[in-house]
Amino acid sequence: MKFIPAGKPALTGRLNATYLIETRYPMEVAAAAMAGEQSSGTFRPIPGETPELLLRFGARVEFIEDLGEVDGEALPFSRAPGDAAAVRPRRAKVGLSWNIENMGTVLASVWSTVLGNLFELHHFSAMRLLDVSFPDVFADAYPGPAFAVEGTRRLTGVTGRPLIGTIVKPSVGLTPRETATLADTLISAGLDFIKDDELMGDPPHSPFEQRFEAVMAVIDRHADRTGRKIMYAANISGDIDAMRRQLDLIERRGGTCAMLVLNSVGLSGVVKMRRHSAVALHGHRAGWGLFSRSPDVGMSYLAYQKFWRLAGIDHMHVNGLSNKFCEPDDSVMASAHACLTPMFGRADRPDTVMPVFSSGQTAVQAGETYGRLGTNDFIYCCGGGIMAHPGGPAAGVQSLHDAFEAAAAGIPARDYAATHPELEAALQAFG
Amino acid sequence: MKFIPAGKPALTGRLNATYLIETRYPMEVAAAAMAGEQSSGTFRPIPGETPELLLRFGARVEFIEDLGEVDGEALPFSRAPGDAAAVRPRRAKVGLSWNIENMGTVLASVWSTVLGNLFELHHFSAMRLLDVSFPDVFADAYPGPAFAVEGTRRLTGVTGRPLIGTIVKPSVGLTPRETATLADTLISAGLDFIKDDELMGDPPHSPFEQRFEAVMAVIDRHADRTGRKIMYAANISGDIDAMRRQLDLIERRGGTCAMLVLNSVGLSGVVKMRRHSAVALHGHRAGWGLFSRSPDVGMSYLAYQKFWRLAGIDHMHVNGLSNKFCEPDDSVMASAHACLTPMFGRADRPDTVMPVFSSGQTAVQAGETYGRLGTNDFIYCCGGGIMAHPGGPAAGVQSLHDAFEAAAAGIPARDYAATHPELEAALQAFG
Repeated sequence: MKFIPAGKPALTGRLNATYLIETRYPMEVAAAAMAGEQSSGTFRPIPGETPELLLRFGARVEFIEDLGEVDGEALPFSRAPGDAAAVRPRRAKVGLSWNIENMGTVLASVWSTVLGNLFELHHFSAMRLLDVSFPDVFADAYPGPAFAVEGTRRLTGVTGRPLIGTIVKPSVGLTPRETATLADTLISAGLDFIKDDELMGDPPHSPFEQRFEAVMAVIDRHADRTGRKIMYAANISGDIDAMRRQLDLIERRGGTCAMLVLNSVGLSGVVKMRRHSAVALHGHRAGWGLFSRSPDVGMSYLAYQKFWRLAGIDHMHVNGLSNKFCEPDDSVMASAHACLTPMFGRADRPDTVMPVFSSGQTAVQAGETYGRLGTNDFIYCCGGGIMAHPGGPAAGVQSLHDAFEAAAAGIPARDYAATHPELEAALQAFG
Repeated sequence: MKFIPAGKPALTGRLNATYLIETRYPMEVAAAAMAGEQSSGTFRPIPGETPELLLRFGARVEFIEDLGEVDGEALPFSRAPGDAAAVRPRRAKVGLSWNIENMGTVLASVWSTVLGNLFELHHFSAMRLLDVSFPDVFADAYPGPAFAVEGTRRLTGVTGRPLIGTIVKPSVGLTPRETATLADTLISAGLDFIKDDELMGDPPHSPFEQRFEAVMAVIDRHADRTGRKIMYAANISGDIDAMRRQLDLIERRGGTCAMLVLNSVGLSGVVKMRRHSAVALHGHRAGWGLFSRSPDVGMSYLAYQKFWRLAGIDHMHVNGLSNKFCEPDDSVMASAHACLTPMFGRADRPDTVMPVFSSGQTAVQAGETYGRLGTNDFIYCCGGGIMAHPGGPAAGVQSLHDAFEAAAAGIPARDYAATHPELEAALQAFG
């Protein structure tokens, strides 16, 4: 049997994935069902599934870590062998691995392999993908982020502190001219970064081209004055050809960033934009709740962000401390740390991405965010925390600078506020 | 205020979506939070959110249908106003609508709008998208399926009965030559349709080009003999440029179908392939469990399939009766009926898609599938149900013809089997 045709170099390495499962089957049987379904198996033994093929292409169960019995089934409709009522479900962590020859270095095939039909198998009353680990061949197959932390600092001229950003609000309804007027206010206030809302794409009341041109004119005017060009993450999420045209416009017009709503555009679209793009790519995770909101189905952010990093995203949203959503603070910080953890350990290209904190953020959470992350390599987006500051937007931005300075110096914000009135006002207003 | 710039025609209509929610907030407050988050609102009142803007661009709560109190919260981490412990959650159906001016006819923007951050809002301990209804302007913006039922029948020459198909198994590990040998067996057995497994893309042990060429040579050889070219859904799911090259090859080589793993490729990629494709697009839903497995988060297949139909998919997988997964039979049939329900009621183009039954299917479920669907416009994929038939693959295919003939004539399969030995053997083996 000739498995490796001429012209294609042999790939080496294994793809690894870890899952949380809940099942009433014996753990070994359940894990074998996962491995079979996602590699060479089917629901009945078939002639072509030879021992040689199984050995080479069958997914391997690397480990099963029994987490013990649970009271009832988390999700309905699972089945059990024999007398179902007599068996109580158990939870476990299961590690699977695949020969990279199964899927080659096609990212969509990896997605199908580690997610695929697993969530629907009747053996399971809970199934979450906890982690995925790509072998080094993927670092050659996909470019990864082009800018990430260092490139974003270079494009914005911001060093020694986090980038301070905001989202254009109201999310929808502003005309291009109104958006530009708001951008003028925001840039005058001292922001480093502004972005479209994920709901703002290319609608008739704010066509992308007109909005982008209007905002860039404002950005350029300020850059002429200050020597610093703020970064505008313009939301290009849409059909491939439209996104390409918009990316071309951004580049031609001297923009430095484009935003992609990852779940709306999808993996292949994001890869395509990365290969076409000369600017930083800002990844918004709207719809993330679909994968994260249930503790019993879905995937971890640790696994999720690796796909988008490999696809070439530079900034990844991670929510924020004390956010307006459901996510606990520890989960937010784990996501941010994941973004800053190298994937391949390569020195020749960016190997981390920049986490973006957003959602109900103000100077109140700034110090803790900084302290818990242990670095200033992040983008910190505030809406009301800037616009609703009692002293106005410029005071709002100043309150964030104060908060980060205090954090960098190891001084409690409350103490630092005694000599920094903007911080003091923010802590009063938002605390 | 000039909302509609020159050159862009005004769009009319509203996008509607229905949700199942669970909340401890007063229903009106909870529904308003959904509407605000997904349109012009933010977490604090802001200056630009004028009454005029709200009226025009704010999402509208169309209805709230209270479903009553439930015992406990389905999902963790939601919050309640005031004394949380004293408030029990209630469930409701909520209808929202948006002015189509909010997002224009950009499908990715619709995805962000009807899904977006909703699942993460702290008000909710359950949130599912039940349905979405696109205004007619989308039928002009997106081509929809090019082949669907009628085109698939034309390409395969199958009329008056369902198409009988199978999936190449083992899913991974076969070389192109081995795949072609298996295809020869399958086509000789009388199948109308064969497809790659969703795990088989463009790996080094079975490069797409070589596999496709090898299988097409077999298909052509049989077509020369029988005058009928079977349809091969070759899995092109991958990066955009690779998918385009593969589509070009399929067209050049006389293929009639390409398969896309919808969740792996993503919405923008699928739209792009539709615009580039001259062949039928077969939509696989691997990963669907991420959206469907929990009754408390995700979306219905009714909503899901509308996005992919609009994007241009011709065949949509719907699982099968008595399947190997967790899905109840009623859910399977509801999905299949959804595929065959017109979206826009237009006569000038296909307005339905062809449902594909798959997963543990044999002659045993064939009659009920036919009977409950009320039409023969579907693809029926069997693996073991054909290959593991005691009389061999050709007898397996014959057993399915028998089962569908019996169903069409209103004769119970058991009775029909008395004079049809292949059906009899299938009912014995798989019943």
